[in-house]
Amino acid sequence: MNRAQLVSEIKRKGSYLCVGLDTDLNKIPDHLKGDKDGMLKFNEAIIQATADLCVAYKPNLAFYEQYGEKGWGILKETIQMIPDTCMVIADAKRGDIGNTASYYAKAVFNDLGADAITVAPYMGKDAITPFLEFEDKWTIVLGLTSNPGAADFQYHGDTPLYEKVIRKCAEWGSPEQLMYVVGATRPDDLANIRAMVPDHFFLVPGVGAQGGSLSAVSKAALTLDAGLLVNSSRGILYAGESEDFATDSRKAAFVLQQEMKSLLS
Amino acid sequence: MNRAQLVSEIKRKGSYLCVGLDTDLNKIPDHLKGDKDGMLKFNEAIIQATADLCVAYKPNLAFYEQYGEKGWGILKETIQMIPDTCMVIADAKRGDIGNTASYYAKAVFNDLGADAITVAPYMGKDAITPFLEFEDKWTIVLGLTSNPGAADFQYHGDTPLYEKVIRKCAEWGSPEQLMYVVGATRPDDLANIRAMVPDHFFLVPGVGAQGGSLSAVSKAALTLDAGLLVNSSRGILYAGESEDFATDSRKAAFVLQQEMKSLLS
Repeated sequence: MNRAQLVSEIKRKGSYLCVGLDTDLNKIPDHLKGDKDGMLKFNEAIIQATADLCVAYKPNLAFYEQYGEKGWGILKETIQMIPDTCMVIADAKRGDIGNTASYYAKAVFNDLGADAITVAPYMGKDAITPFLEFEDKWTIVLGLTSNPGAADFQYHGDTPLYEKVIRKCAEWGSPEQLMYVVGATRPDDLANIRAMVPDHFFLVPGVGAQGGSLSAVSKAALTLDAGLLVNSSRGILYAGESEDFATDSRKAAFVLQQEMKSLLS
Repeated sequence: MNRAQLVSEIKRKGSYLCVGLDTDLNKIPDHLKGDKDGMLKFNEAIIQATADLCVAYKPNLAFYEQYGEKGWGILKETIQMIPDTCMVIADAKRGDIGNTASYYAKAVFNDLGADAITVAPYMGKDAITPFLEFEDKWTIVLGLTSNPGAADFQYHGDTPLYEKVIRKCAEWGSPEQLMYVVGATRPDDLANIRAMVPDHFFLVPGVGAQGGSLSAVSKAALTLDAGLLVNSSRGILYAGESEDFATDSRKAAFVLQQEMKSLLS
């Protein structure tokens, strides 16, 4: 999915919602816990209930890799269920160099069939550019994250490290192929980052469970093309516990989509 | 494998060699290229030919993940072939937080059965400590890497970022459970880092193909417990091209092991 398609879907759906498919067998409804295909059935129900309300799904690979080959297979089947109107972001936070990075890109773009991958910047340019060589695919670099540990290293230096990372990566990847992860928990920094890179999309975790506010995030960084994908995971996935859990998930997604629709207009 | 066992194997074998199992189907001998089990047979031959000369194997996960479930299966079978006298380091460079990090730890320590994982520090403490909770397992944090892109961010700040990372992580993990990746291509920095963390093991890539020297690395950072695992991948794996390639791999490993034996004494 290229940028024009993404922006078109955002406008058509009135939504810049990304649903985080962090499916946890300990948290899915009881009737699926004992089912050997429970994880896949859960994902299928979530996707069917929310695909018209969001523009992206973001499975975090760790949730699947913990089950080895079987988990990888479930993830691949899940991605195949996602309609073309939604971007698939493999939240992999990979960070390796040269050929090795290309192999991660192949794993995620070719084998899994994702549109985008999250990438860690610590190793520098040779850990970022191999991903950018894949046409119509997206590289989403960790900029300023939403977790408490972000304070340990991302603010290091007179010019904070995250600022250097964001400026440098903008030299390597255009707004057609590169995005940033910027946490919702720091709206002031979000506004500063928007000023640094006015045209790049931001993938924003941390709304909901982690305390970030959709309106504050949007006020700080929404652009004419939206320029934002705001992620919600737990708040949508685990909204209900009954056999009809997907209806509750849809309601939770609908609340966010309605707010986004009004913020977009 | 705990620290006492590792140090004991280093002394018994006269070696602190780590063999990087970065198995590339484009580079293995021709007679295995057409074989559907070529990757596994290649790894088996390398392990049989080198296990008494090294103390660790380090498969880079990207080389396997590019083949999806099948690749994950090959990696798991490979790890099962490695004898108990060698540490298994999953070179995964994962970097995610909290529960997500725990799931990566489960994938690598429980599902794959590795002893150690490489981890990226960008997200801070909550991306490191979940790995440290696994008993008798090792967390190997990227400190100063051997690639050209290391210069982009790892030297950022008046106190270079890598130095801050190394000092902070030493507060979180003891020398019994935490190591650092420190590249062989920067021996002066290696000596400075050894002064900062006298007791932690370093995993050192970059000897051989990338231009680092074993003697310079050892002079800069060898301790009474060795304190080093020096990795070689291509120089050993692709030493030969014939059906008898493993004999050439053994010779290449033997040259390094002999030099290590004399440096240890």
